[in-house]
Amino acid sequence: KEVAKLLEMKAQLGTDEGKHKFVLKTPKGTRDFGPKEMAIRERAFKAIISCFKRHGAEVIDTPVFELKETLTGKYGEDSKLIYDLKDQGGELLSLRYDLTVPFARYLAMNKITNIKRYHIAKVYRRDNPAMTRGRYREFYQCDFDIAGQFDPMIPDAECLKIVHEILSDLQLGDFVIKVNDRRILDGMFAVCGVPDSKFRTICSSVDKLDKVPWEEVRSEMVGEKGLSPEAADRIGEYVQLHGGLDLIEQLLQDPKLSQNKVAKEGLGDMKLLFEYLTLFGITGKISFDLSLARGLDYYTGVIFEAVLLQQENEHVEEPVSVGSVAGGGRYDGLVGMFDPKGRKVPCVGVSIGIERIFSILEQRLEASEEKIRTTETQVLVASAQKKLLEERLKLISELWDAGIKAEMLYKKNPKLLNQLQYCEETGIPLVAIVGEQELKDGVVKLRIVATREEVNVRRESLVEEIRIRTSQC
Amino acid sequence: KEVAKLLEMKAQLGTDEGKHKFVLKTPKGTRDFGPKEMAIRERAFKAIISCFKRHGAEVIDTPVFELKETLTGKYGEDSKLIYDLKDQGGELLSLRYDLTVPFARYLAMNKITNIKRYHIAKVYRRDNPAMTRGRYREFYQCDFDIAGQFDPMIPDAECLKIVHEILSDLQLGDFVIKVNDRRILDGMFAVCGVPDSKFRTICSSVDKLDKVPWEEVRSEMVGEKGLSPEAADRIGEYVQLHGGLDLIEQLLQDPKLSQNKVAKEGLGDMKLLFEYLTLFGITGKISFDLSLARGLDYYTGVIFEAVLLQQENEHVEEPVSVGSVAGGGRYDGLVGMFDPKGRKVPCVGVSIGIERIFSILEQRLEASEEKIRTTETQVLVASAQKKLLEERLKLISELWDAGIKAEMLYKKNPKLLNQLQYCEETGIPLVAIVGEQELKDGVVKLRIVATREEVNVRRESLVEEIRIRTSQC
Repeated sequence: KEVAKLLEMKAQLGTDEGKHKFVLKTPKGTRDFGPKEMAIRERAFKAIISCFKRHGAEVIDTPVFELKETLTGKYGEDSKLIYDLKDQGGELLSLRYDLTVPFARYLAMNKITNIKRYHIAKVYRRDNPAMTRGRYREFYQCDFDIAGQFDPMIPDAECLKIVHEILSDLQLGDFVIKVNDRRILDGMFAVCGVPDSKFRTICSSVDKLDKVPWEEVRSEMVGEKGLSPEAADRIGEYVQLHGGLDLIEQLLQDPKLSQNKVAKEGLGDMKLLFEYLTLFGITGKISFDLSLARGLDYYTGVIFEAVLLQQENEHVEEPVSVGSVAGGGRYDGLVGMFDPKGRKVPCVGVSIGIERIFSILEQRLEASEEKIRTTETQVLVASAQKKLLEERLKLISELWDAGIKAEMLYKKNPKLLNQLQYCEETGIPLVAIVGEQELKDGVVKLRIVATREEVNVRRESLVEEIRIRTSQC
Repeated sequence: KEVAKLLEMKAQLGTDEGKHKFVLKTPKGTRDFGPKEMAIRERAFKAIISCFKRHGAEVIDTPVFELKETLTGKYGEDSKLIYDLKDQGGELLSLRYDLTVPFARYLAMNKITNIKRYHIAKVYRRDNPAMTRGRYREFYQCDFDIAGQFDPMIPDAECLKIVHEILSDLQLGDFVIKVNDRRILDGMFAVCGVPDSKFRTICSSVDKLDKVPWEEVRSEMVGEKGLSPEAADRIGEYVQLHGGLDLIEQLLQDPKLSQNKVAKEGLGDMKLLFEYLTLFGITGKISFDLSLARGLDYYTGVIFEAVLLQQENEHVEEPVSVGSVAGGGRYDGLVGMFDPKGRKVPCVGVSIGIERIFSILEQRLEASEEKIRTTETQVLVASAQKKLLEERLKLISELWDAGIKAEMLYKKNPKLLNQLQYCEETGIPLVAIVGEQELKDGVVKLRIVATREEVNVRRESLVEEIRIRTSQC
C-alpha cells in the first residue's frame, strides 16, 4: 500500500518534472527561418522563379501529404525514408518525398498529357540530417518539368539550359553539370555481364561513386550484391570515363557497347543533346560522365546532376566537387504507373536543391558585411512632443491608404531619439515628424535618415514626396 | 491442401485487384492547385502580402510539423483535430494546427520579445471537410502578429486596420468586423453566475452562436454543460447585444458588469480601441458584438472576426453573414507557456482565412469571362519552314540570356499555323519568326498576335523591340 502511494507520488513528480523538462526545439532535421534567413531565401527564390517563368512554365501546387499507396514502389531503396502519418482512422497518408511523384499523380488524375510547370515546395525525408552541410529532413525543392510527347532531346536540353542559367545567375562559383543516360548505364551493365534483375541495385551502387571510392563500391557490388568480380571490374573501367562529344563518339565505336541496342539509343540521343547544348553555348560546363547514376528508380533516359566546384581562392590544386545543387532526368514511365490503362506521358525535369544554395548565400552575406533589410518600410511616423498619438495615428492611416509603407512606435509618447534610433536599426530611410507647429502650418517635417536633412513638406504633397524619395528602394 | 492453394490464389487475385483498384486521388479534404487556381491564389496573396509589408512586417517560416508536446494543451476542444505523425522511432510529431502556436514557440525559443511578422503557410485540421464552402483539411493561413509590451490597444487597432485594408482591397463585397474582448466575456460569465471552472466551456458554447440559434446553444449550456437555466438566460440577454461606442458606454454603466473588475478593464480598453478605429476611419465596418467568443483557448483580450455579408444583388431582405474570412485577437499568455521561466510576451494578431476568399475570387472570375493568363511568356520563337530547329534554338537561347520570356514548340518541324494557334491559346502576344530569307537579311520577323501585324526587326534590335512592345504586360 505504501509502495503504491510512493509510486503515485513519483508519477505526480514525474509529470511535474515533465512540465519543466519540456524541450523547446524544432523537430530533428528541421529549422525555423527568421526574417534574415527569409530575406536570403526570397532572393534565391526570385532568381529561380524568374528563370522558370522565362522558360514559359506555369505553376501548380499539391498537398503536403499523399495517399501512402501513391508513394509506394516509386523510390526503391529510399522508401524507408518516407514519413508516414499516424493511422487516426480514414486514409493512410505519407508526407511527400519529392515533387515528381505528386506531379505524375496530378497528370494521371487530371488526364493532362502536355504541360510545362514549376513547383516550389517542401519535401520530407527521414534521413540522417547534416544541417551544417545543408542536409535537412524538411527542405525545399524547386522543380521544373516538361511533360508531353515531343521530338527527342529538345525539352531535355532546355532543362540543362535552365540549370546553367540559375547557377550562373546566383553566382555560386564554378560548377559542372554531369550528364548520363539510364539506357547507356543499362547497356553498359548488360555488356559487363550484370544480370537484368540486378540492374537497379547495381545502379544504386554506382550512384555512391560521388561519395565513396571505387574500391568500396566494388566490394559492395561483389560482396553484398553478389556480382561477379569480372563484371564489377568491367564496370569499373567504364565508370571512370567522362568527357564530351569525343567520348560519345568513342563509345559509339566501342565494340561491345555499340552492339547493345539500348546503349546505342542512349548514345545517339546523348550526341543529339550535345548538339543542342552547343547551340545553347553551354557545353563548357557539361560533362558526359559514366559514373553518374542517380538514386531514384523512376528515371528512364537522360539523367543529370550539377555540382559546385571548390573555389579557386581556396588553394586547392584540382577543383573538387563540394556537393550537388541540382539534379534531374527523364522519367517516361512514372505517369503510366498511375494511369488505370497505363497510358504513358513522357516527362523530363530538373530539381534545384535550394538548401545548400541558401547555406552558401548566407555565408557569403555574412562575409560581405552587407546589411540586409528585413522590411520594406519607407517612412516612420514620429512625433517630437507628447500627446500627439492621435495625430500620428491619423497621419499613418492616410499614408497606408495611399499605399505608403509606414510604421510608428506603439507608444503613447515615444522619445524622438528612440524613434530615430529605430530607423537606424531597421534601415527605414525617412521619418515623417508631426509636431504642434507643423500641425498649425499644415506641414509635416520629413527627415532623411542618412543625411539628417530635414524639410517641411505640405501635408497634401507628403505621399508624392515620399514616393519620389524612395523610388530607388 | 486444396483449400490452401485456393486461398493462395485468392490472395494473389487480391493483390492483383488491389493494383487495378488503386485510387487516384488526393487525400480527403485536400486538393491540387492547377495553373489557373494558382494564378488566382497568387493575386490574393499579392494583395495580402503587400498589405503586411505596408505595415512594416518581417516574414518568418517554421517547419510544417512540431514536437507533439508543443501543440498539447493549446487548442482546448479542438485538439482532437490535430494530425499526428506515425511513431517511426525518434520524436513524436504533429502537423501544425495553426501558425500562432509555432510563432509563440519560435519567440520563446529565440528569446524574442519584440517583433512584427507575417507568416503565410498551410495548416492541417482533421475536420469534416466542406470543400464547396471552402473548408479543407489542408488550408492556407495568412497571419500577421505584433509581439511586445506596448501601450494598450495601439497594435490591436492596427490589426483591425489590416483586416479592413485587405478585405477592401480584394473587393469581396460588404463585410463587418465583429469585435469583443475575452475579459468582457469572462466578466459577463461571472456576473451571470457561471462558475469559474466553466468559463472556457461556456465560452465554446457561445462561440457556436454564428452557426446555431440561441435556443440550441442554451440547451447545450444547461443540458450538456450543467449550467443553471437562470445563468444561461442572463447570458442570453447579453449575447444579443451589438453596437458601437454607445453600447460600450451603456455597458460601462451596467449595474452588474461595471462592478466586475475584468469586465470593466475590457470595456475601458474597448472604448480606447474604438477611439483609435475612429482615427483610422473604419468604425463603419466594426461591430462590438457580445456574442463573439472565438473557439481557441489562448485568447486573453480583444478578439475579432470578419464576416462577409450577402451581396445586395442576391435579393435578400437583410444582409446575412456568409462566413468568416479573418479572425484573431490578443493572446498574452501563450509565449509564457513555452518559456522555462514563464516570461510573458504580449501578442496580438490576425489570421486571414484565404480559402473562402479563393472560392469567391474563382467564382467571380468565372462569371466575368475574363481570360486569365497562366504564363508570362512574351514571345514564341517560330519558324515558317522546315529544318530550322537549330536556328530556333540559337535565337531562343539569345532571348533567354537577355532576360526575355520566350517559348518554342518542342518539334523539329512545327507548322506555322500550330505555332500561331499556341500563341492564341496561351495569350503569348508576340511571335519571332525565323526563315531562310530573314536569316540571309539578318532580321527576324516579329508578328503581333492581336493585330496580325508583321514587322522585320534587325536581329540586334530584337530584344529591345520585344521589351518595348511588351512593357505594359
